[in-house]
Amino acid sequence: MNATTTSWFSDFAANLASGHRQVVPITVFVAVLCLCMIVGHLLEENRWVNESITAIFIGCLAGTIILFISKGRSSHILRFDEELFFIYLLPPIIFNAGFQVKKKQFFHNFLTIMLFGVIGVFISSSIITVGSWWLFPKFGFDGLTPRDYLAIGTIFSSTDTVCTLQVLHQDETPLLYSLVFGEGVVNDATSVVLFNAVQKIDINKLGGWSAVHVFVDFLYLFSTSTALGFAAGLLTAYVLRGLYFGRHSTVREIALMVLMAYLSYMLAELFNLSGILTVFFAGVLMSHYAWYNVTESSRITTRHIFATMSFIAETFIFLYVGMDALDMEKWKTSKLSYLLFLILLGRAAFVFPLSALSNYMNRSAERSTSITLKHQIVICWAGLMRGAVSIALAFKQFTRSGVTLDPVNATMVTTTIIVVLFSTIVFGFLTKPLVNYLLPHHTNNSSIHREPRSPKEDLTLPLLSFEESATTNILRAKDSLSMLIERPVYTIHSYWKKFDNAYMRPIFGGPHSN
Amino acid sequence: MNATTTSWFSDFAANLASGHRQVVPITVFVAVLCLCMIVGHLLEENRWVNESITAIFIGCLAGTIILFISKGRSSHILRFDEELFFIYLLPPIIFNAGFQVKKKQFFHNFLTIMLFGVIGVFISSSIITVGSWWLFPKFGFDGLTPRDYLAIGTIFSSTDTVCTLQVLHQDETPLLYSLVFGEGVVNDATSVVLFNAVQKIDINKLGGWSAVHVFVDFLYLFSTSTALGFAAGLLTAYVLRGLYFGRHSTVREIALMVLMAYLSYMLAELFNLSGILTVFFAGVLMSHYAWYNVTESSRITTRHIFATMSFIAETFIFLYVGMDALDMEKWKTSKLSYLLFLILLGRAAFVFPLSALSNYMNRSAERSTSITLKHQIVICWAGLMRGAVSIALAFKQFTRSGVTLDPVNATMVTTTIIVVLFSTIVFGFLTKPLVNYLLPHHTNNSSIHREPRSPKEDLTLPLLSFEESATTNILRAKDSLSMLIERPVYTIHSYWKKFDNAYMRPIFGGPHSN
Repeated sequence: MNATTTSWFSDFAANLASGHRQVVPITVFVAVLCLCMIVGHLLEENRWVNESITAIFIGCLAGTIILFISKGRSSHILRFDEELFFIYLLPPIIFNAGFQVKKKQFFHNFLTIMLFGVIGVFISSSIITVGSWWLFPKFGFDGLTPRDYLAIGTIFSSTDTVCTLQVLHQDETPLLYSLVFGEGVVNDATSVVLFNAVQKIDINKLGGWSAVHVFVDFLYLFSTSTALGFAAGLLTAYVLRGLYFGRHSTVREIALMVLMAYLSYMLAELFNLSGILTVFFAGVLMSHYAWYNVTESSRITTRHIFATMSFIAETFIFLYVGMDALDMEKWKTSKLSYLLFLILLGRAAFVFPLSALSNYMNRSAERSTSITLKHQIVICWAGLMRGAVSIALAFKQFTRSGVTLDPVNATMVTTTIIVVLFSTIVFGFLTKPLVNYLLPHHTNNSSIHREPRSPKEDLTLPLLSFEESATTNILRAKDSLSMLIERPVYTIHSYWKKFDNAYMRPIFGGPHSN
Repeated sequence: MNATTTSWFSDFAANLASGHRQVVPITVFVAVLCLCMIVGHLLEENRWVNESITAIFIGCLAGTIILFISKGRSSHILRFDEELFFIYLLPPIIFNAGFQVKKKQFFHNFLTIMLFGVIGVFISSSIITVGSWWLFPKFGFDGLTPRDYLAIGTIFSSTDTVCTLQVLHQDETPLLYSLVFGEGVVNDATSVVLFNAVQKIDINKLGGWSAVHVFVDFLYLFSTSTALGFAAGLLTAYVLRGLYFGRHSTVREIALMVLMAYLSYMLAELFNLSGILTVFFAGVLMSHYAWYNVTESSRITTRHIFATMSFIAETFIFLYVGMDALDMEKWKTSKLSYLLFLILLGRAAFVFPLSALSNYMNRSAERSTSITLKHQIVICWAGLMRGAVSIALAFKQFTRSGVTLDPVNATMVTTTIIVVLFSTIVFGFLTKPLVNYLLPHHTNNSSIHREPRSPKEDLTLPLLSFEESATTNILRAKDSLSMLIERPVYTIHSYWKKFDNAYMRPIFGGPHSN
């Protein structure tokens, strides 16, 4: 009898312990997230601080408190889990980007965005790979394999433009906003795809051929992922239209959109494609077709809920980074200055030449599509910050399920976190003043928050309306015919519109656009 | 060099394997969930089938396919995790119930709901405990401890009324709907609280005193959990009002409401209180105050998103139960018939006496608040189905983190799943015909789906409007003065309303009600 009693009690204790294993960290994290929302709101008008910096500082504070309570054992309560990041946090952020993107402007500047987002990443990661391969051993940091150096190139080429986007104003400098936003998304996708492509090459036969291999692999991943995203978006639109869910249930419509978006991401991951690209294009297609097949309340709900999920996920990531900042040992061993130098070099090495190339390609178009030097500086600056994707990729490369025993690998993970922290805090602090100095018109509007916009607003804009002042309207009317002949993007766009109205809209839903 | 290469490859393989450990099950589950949404919609008009049964059958089908693919190893891909259930799936379901509840009707019938939901659970679980303690050894099933029998009582006293609620129509039989809905929520909370209270008693000194102990413990848990829920709801309302989040950001308002609701649940769990009760009252308070302090789009979004989350969580649970149904061995060892008999006995033993008591208490009031025999039968029937809470409690009692090696414990887990399956499918199939037979007026409206309602509609109802026909309106006007004197609930309600308008509304927000 006594033995049974003991076993009950040990059972109960075990139940209690296992029940509380997740409860404590989740409770603390959710409480701190709430605090972030409130403080972030209160500091919104502040000139120097932005959402990311607030989250990092609150994370830092929470970490200090936890460090005291746990008597110095650990400053963070959740082990960074690369799966948590790639499976739960990243999909809503990227899907929301696709869902809220101003499709007209995105596709209008498609070529330039692709130049920056794809070619730019190739240039930048080559420079960082070669640079670190050459510099690290010089400063006594050995032990990395060639594959590690290739990975480092892609890890530090993924940018985090959220910080700059909060300062830019979409309606005042639409071209700049569109370029920074578009590059941010394409850049994330390219980095992850390139990272995966680099994993596959045969390290023993590095050379010209492996570069070609990587590029072919990259193209394959890029196109299949995009196709899967298109398929998921169109299928959702078709199902929502065919079943006319609006008959009874807003709940089912919303659930189906959320689940299909998530399914597309998971399928892409399952087939080793790029989930980021897939879910981005699923978002674009859903806002273009599926969104028109649901009830009014579903439209409002989906628009805001995707933005909210993305917001929470972003805050969560920066909170985590903030908690990690306390580990003082990390700061000693980091290669911060070399890497920041390489990042800056890799960034400048493609922004200015590619801007010139883009301006040359658009030489015959109206003034508003040429990238001025000031804009180039802002674009270059916007890409200096490193974010969550870098950290996740570093964990993927240098740890096994978040843990590493190898000191060289541990140093690389640490260094990545330090680079993210430093670039977000220091560069982030300087972003508002810099942008206000370069684009002084913005001073009054810099605090306006990016509210998610209705895709409808996007569609009711006239075809080429980037500047709405009277003078440019006249200029534009004059040039519009010659432009359509001279600039291939416009022509493709107008053909697409015809095709969309004639074949796609009737099947997948949405109003005729003109 | 060769060793390093091998380590790269094993690293890579491990990365790949660990990356795919979660991806496959999540992908399959999300895909099957999507299928459930569509099939559920198509079958909505069907007379015999409801949402839960659809999910169970689709789960069963998916299980069969997985069984074939995995060559008979396992029919379910996700191990049932009681933490997954209590931490992620249950909170949105209960919060949504609190958020959407028609507060006026809920509090109007408060005493009757509490009779059924609290006293009823005590009666039912006593009968099931005593019955199984007496019956099980008689039929050769030994090895359960006294604590196990006490747990069995609470496990099989938690009902799942979702199925019946889908058939009842809120506007036609408001009293019946309100009672079934209210009892469903209070019953879940009572079962879980009672389950936790039973865990604490000293098994060696069972007797009259331990019953008192359990009851005192129960009252303590009940009141502290409710208080915590009130505090969380009021704090959210106060913060949203004080900061006026509407100034910029719908996103922050939604995020704060979601996070605060979740935080209240987790805090309750952390302090070993009942998260269900806490999050339910947090939902009630938020829809009463906080909801009025946010922008119009936040209101629409929150209303639908909570309903959607709850819907997905419910479907998820029934899908899992369906996948489990395939394990044929489970059916052999089950104590199905005894338990079903005990459940029926325990149910009937309190519904009819307590209904009579409630009718006696309300004898002086208008006709519409007395529970007719037909209504009593429907209430009794509605509580026969067992659902997710039973399964979760069974896993909590009889396994350690979802795994058990003890054959007696394994049998109890199996038996619970079988009872849930059988009651949901067989009783569920019969619900629509039965209700249509007993309440023939419903035939035409039985297929109308429960759309989440605006809390506003609730508040603009006149104080006692349960029947809107002209005759009852006249009757009501005559009786209203005498009623206010005779029936304490009404008096309390009107005092509360005065207090609410004078002190609470100005601080926490919302319109004056009259």
